[in-house]
Amino acid sequence: MSVTRVGFIGTGIMGGHMARRLAQAGFAVSAWNRSPGKAEALERFGVAVAAEAAEAARHADVVIAMLSSGQVCDDVLFGANAVAGAMSPGSTLVVMSSIPVETARRQAELAASKGIRYVDAPVSGGEKGADEGTLAVMAGGEAATIEALAPILGLFGRVTHVGPAGAGSLAKLANQLIVASNICAVAEALLLAERGGADPAQVREALLGGFADSTVFRQHGLRMIEADFVPGGPAKYQVKDTGTALALAESLGLTLPVATEVDRIFRGLVDNGGGDLDHSAAILELRRMSVKRRAGKR
Amino acid sequence: MSVTRVGFIGTGIMGGHMARRLAQAGFAVSAWNRSPGKAEALERFGVAVAAEAAEAARHADVVIAMLSSGQVCDDVLFGANAVAGAMSPGSTLVVMSSIPVETARRQAELAASKGIRYVDAPVSGGEKGADEGTLAVMAGGEAATIEALAPILGLFGRVTHVGPAGAGSLAKLANQLIVASNICAVAEALLLAERGGADPAQVREALLGGFADSTVFRQHGLRMIEADFVPGGPAKYQVKDTGTALALAESLGLTLPVATEVDRIFRGLVDNGGGDLDHSAAILELRRMSVKRRAGKR
Repeated sequence: MSVTRVGFIGTGIMGGHMARRLAQAGFAVSAWNRSPGKAEALERFGVAVAAEAAEAARHADVVIAMLSSGQVCDDVLFGANAVAGAMSPGSTLVVMSSIPVETARRQAELAASKGIRYVDAPVSGGEKGADEGTLAVMAGGEAATIEALAPILGLFGRVTHVGPAGAGSLAKLANQLIVASNICAVAEALLLAERGGADPAQVREALLGGFADSTVFRQHGLRMIEADFVPGGPAKYQVKDTGTALALAESLGLTLPVATEVDRIFRGLVDNGGGDLDHSAAILELRRMSVKRRAGKR
Repeated sequence: MSVTRVGFIGTGIMGGHMARRLAQAGFAVSAWNRSPGKAEALERFGVAVAAEAAEAARHADVVIAMLSSGQVCDDVLFGANAVAGAMSPGSTLVVMSSIPVETARRQAELAASKGIRYVDAPVSGGEKGADEGTLAVMAGGEAATIEALAPILGLFGRVTHVGPAGAGSLAKLANQLIVASNICAVAEALLLAERGGADPAQVREALLGGFADSTVFRQHGLRMIEADFVPGGPAKYQVKDTGTALALAESLGLTLPVATEVDRIFRGLVDNGGGDLDHSAAILELRRMSVKRRAGKR
């Protein structure tokens, strides 16, 4: 059996680690990155560097894209002289960027029209997860296609098939929505405790291990108490996610009252200059809203 | 040194286990319960049963109250012929019921006027935690008083001193607020995933271990997916907590936009007949809100 050839499009912070893990596992990897230095750094692991994205994809059995946005994926994968045009019928395109659900569905249709299998498989777990192969991979597409990708996607972390094309992006969006909402919930509770006269650090300590506990409560709660807002996850990206979720909900006729307020809190934070702060800085915006309200009452 | 005498007021589901643990540890426990059968069941562990609440408190060094509400605590502890009147100056009253912050503060002042030390120490962890001594105990009051109570409170679980009198109740309220908000956040995200065409059970599976993960996500998320709304924590109690939190926030001039929506969701659930369902049934109310909205648009 011949070695599976993988084209890797986008070898930035996440993609660089992922392409390296593929090469180290024995796959024949051809990589492209907009700024070539990041791809060239992978040559010592046996990765071939392509001058054009289409070139990295030309003889690949599987092409993986890890680019910065849905728009960049559209351009690089489906634009003129782009990746999809160079791929062979029967090969598979896996988009691992976080992109809107509608973008994933449209790309799946475009791919299908060229005889290319399509999977959207965004991840969570950050650079550490990419480095160590412990990402959560949320895969949307045909079951058989995703099963066939197991030797590849399994190198990146734990793979879950969540539904048809677009469902991977939807799962990632659900993840972001819960994180954003829980950050605001923790911020409101700590603010109430603090203003009511309790010691927020001790309240956090008391609640560990109980029903209020979560990764967000532990990590972002601590950031709020220590006023440590160096990102982490910048608030401006949070706004992008909550906005995407609300637009999708609107198109589906769904009312999401909590998400609506969470979006408003993060937009306020960004409008007030906090876009580059960690998203736990939602507590600053909640403080601001209360101060404004009290001022208005005078 | 003589054995510490503990008066135990309210030996229901939680208090029964706690009084038993005290007696088993060698404390001299005198117990009272409104329906006497529940106290008498403790006699085989060496607990003495009192005919009146004041009688259980009369010679006690420490009196613990585990009653159903702030109002019942006011009546039984501070009403006519009540517990506080029978307690000696220098003894300690520990209210472990979940009561409003303002009630705890008022009771602390009343107790102080009689020379009685006061601690509010609500718990979380349910009957299982009370049985096994693994509750989270959130204690508000003087540090020295709470330290002196360590041999007693330590039998119930992990004790954290969270601030002055009232702070225990405040910590418990913060706990309830985070749980209620996170339940709604998880419900909105799963609803979006489901309506968008993903498999919610697989989405839950994919998100385990990531930043969206929490006790609520695991337990209540599963209940939502399986439509298992047998309580658990009935929604009607959730409404009591969110209402208490919002009233306190209002009195402190705090704006809590997420809690406001969460309260509205749970009130809607109760108004629509779901008060006795588990609070994970918030997802039913969110579905109803969306259906209503779509109907209104036609």
